[in-house]
Amino acid sequence: MSLLVIGSVAFDAIETPFGKTEKIIGGAATYISLSSSYFTKNTNLVAVVGEDFPQNKIDLLKSRGINTDGLQIKKGEKSFFWSGRYHNDMNSRDTLITELNVLENFDPILPESYQECEFLMLGNLTPATQKTVIDRLKERPRLVVMDTMNFWMEIAMDDLRETLKVVDVLTINDEEARQLSEEYSLVRAARKIMAMGPSFLIIKKGEHGALLFHQNEVFFAPALPLEEVFDPTGAGDTFAGGFIGYLASTEDVSFENMKRAIIYGSVMASFCVEKFGTERLESLTNEEIQARAKEFMKLSQVELEMI
Amino acid sequence: MSLLVIGSVAFDAIETPFGKTEKIIGGAATYISLSSSYFTKNTNLVAVVGEDFPQNKIDLLKSRGINTDGLQIKKGEKSFFWSGRYHNDMNSRDTLITELNVLENFDPILPESYQECEFLMLGNLTPATQKTVIDRLKERPRLVVMDTMNFWMEIAMDDLRETLKVVDVLTINDEEARQLSEEYSLVRAARKIMAMGPSFLIIKKGEHGALLFHQNEVFFAPALPLEEVFDPTGAGDTFAGGFIGYLASTEDVSFENMKRAIIYGSVMASFCVEKFGTERLESLTNEEIQARAKEFMKLSQVELEMI
Repeated sequence: MSLLVIGSVAFDAIETPFGKTEKIIGGAATYISLSSSYFTKNTNLVAVVGEDFPQNKIDLLKSRGINTDGLQIKKGEKSFFWSGRYHNDMNSRDTLITELNVLENFDPILPESYQECEFLMLGNLTPATQKTVIDRLKERPRLVVMDTMNFWMEIAMDDLRETLKVVDVLTINDEEARQLSEEYSLVRAARKIMAMGPSFLIIKKGEHGALLFHQNEVFFAPALPLEEVFDPTGAGDTFAGGFIGYLASTEDVSFENMKRAIIYGSVMASFCVEKFGTERLESLTNEEIQARAKEFMKLSQVELEMI
Repeated sequence: MSLLVIGSVAFDAIETPFGKTEKIIGGAATYISLSSSYFTKNTNLVAVVGEDFPQNKIDLLKSRGINTDGLQIKKGEKSFFWSGRYHNDMNSRDTLITELNVLENFDPILPESYQECEFLMLGNLTPATQKTVIDRLKERPRLVVMDTMNFWMEIAMDDLRETLKVVDVLTINDEEARQLSEEYSLVRAARKIMAMGPSFLIIKKGEHGALLFHQNEVFFAPALPLEEVFDPTGAGDTFAGGFIGYLASTEDVSFENMKRAIIYGSVMASFCVEKFGTERLESLTNEEIQARAKEFMKLSQVELEMI
């Protein structure tokens, strides 16, 4: 089934202990749609860039089967730009530069052909913009997944609460879950957050894996212990792209199938961090994805004999 | 098969955000042997206490089938005492008081009947004392598991290196693994630590689960997301007790069986933190342990369909 992805398409400049990049392409929707493109050939992008965004990078998205009809190119304007530096542990980073540019007045216009999308991925943007997309769809999609971040909890909590009411799945990290719920225990945090709207909650814990909550059920997906994390930028978006891409391709939004989707999301994220930016996501093969998925399964496979 | 457990038997006074205790019984060997007693009826304790240690607590250990012939009671001396206060996140704590008392000159004397033990659990003590136990066994046990902590890495690194050379399994937490190996990546840390001696390494990550490394294999065991952690004291020791208790009872030291043992260790640790001190470990039932083990299995159970 078809998937609508909204989020930033942008430039990043990244510094890690392993090196630094010039301006390279980044943005939540870039990572999400590249990742989902390995599962569904029907990914439809809504985003905005400036005149400075290179055509060959748009062609790259197209070559992955991503529909860019909803990608607005603003003449005379510049693309969103973020620059950051990771600390030695790779778990924390400092933002050096944030230039909103075209994102400041982003009006998400949906091409008519996108109206049929049954899966909607709301990449990290202002909660009001995320809600606008839902409002502009004549029929509510079968599944709405929302990503957000602590920044909006600090400056747009009212809008965030409104958007949370109309989504099915929320993906946030553990610190954000604690901030949003004001609970330290993730079990309690999950209960409070699900009461705010989403009936599924995914708590991303980076190198510690991810938790999926739904009603009284919980599923824990491990992260693959990696020899080296080269660049964590976009890992969360790549996870979300694999997650919703798998769901869209299998047309099954049950808890059981979401468990599988989380494994595939984790698989895609584990590739993402192996190289700078989107590089590793540009030329994966199905065989590589399958082999990695098997590694994930093996990682936590155990047959228990009861004592 | 029979299990020899060495470590501290002591008094603790604990403060958590939920309350505080008077002096209650604690110590690595107390938690380990209580935990292992649910798996093997042949747990043999080596430890030292002062005259102040209550007979009814020794009787409690005996009632769990633990052999206390190797528990020395030093007339006119006082038991080891530790007091600590947990921070609100329960992941960090301040030590308020440490009184070594009888532990200062602890000479681990092994009763003759202990010579037959085939499983040896070296609870946290000076690495030199741990090694003495191995040296005093006429035959090397089939499996030697060692727990240690960052403190010994700071003040007794040479002794620690010597002891590491002669053990099979080391259990430490993630920060300690990084400190011992001087590597941030746990995959690299594991490789370096296994080169120091132990052919199996368990990295405990608290609420994030545990990793088992052996040669090029890795297994990830989740931790159960808990509504509330009441008191984390002894959770690592309880984990170790469940781990080695299960191995001793099944008489199988393969990687596959260690995976099961880690699940049971995690099960026991998840009970431990539900009440202050050893309280929850004093009266568990097999049914409770089995039910919790099933929860653990369900937590990470997924059937993957390849895309």
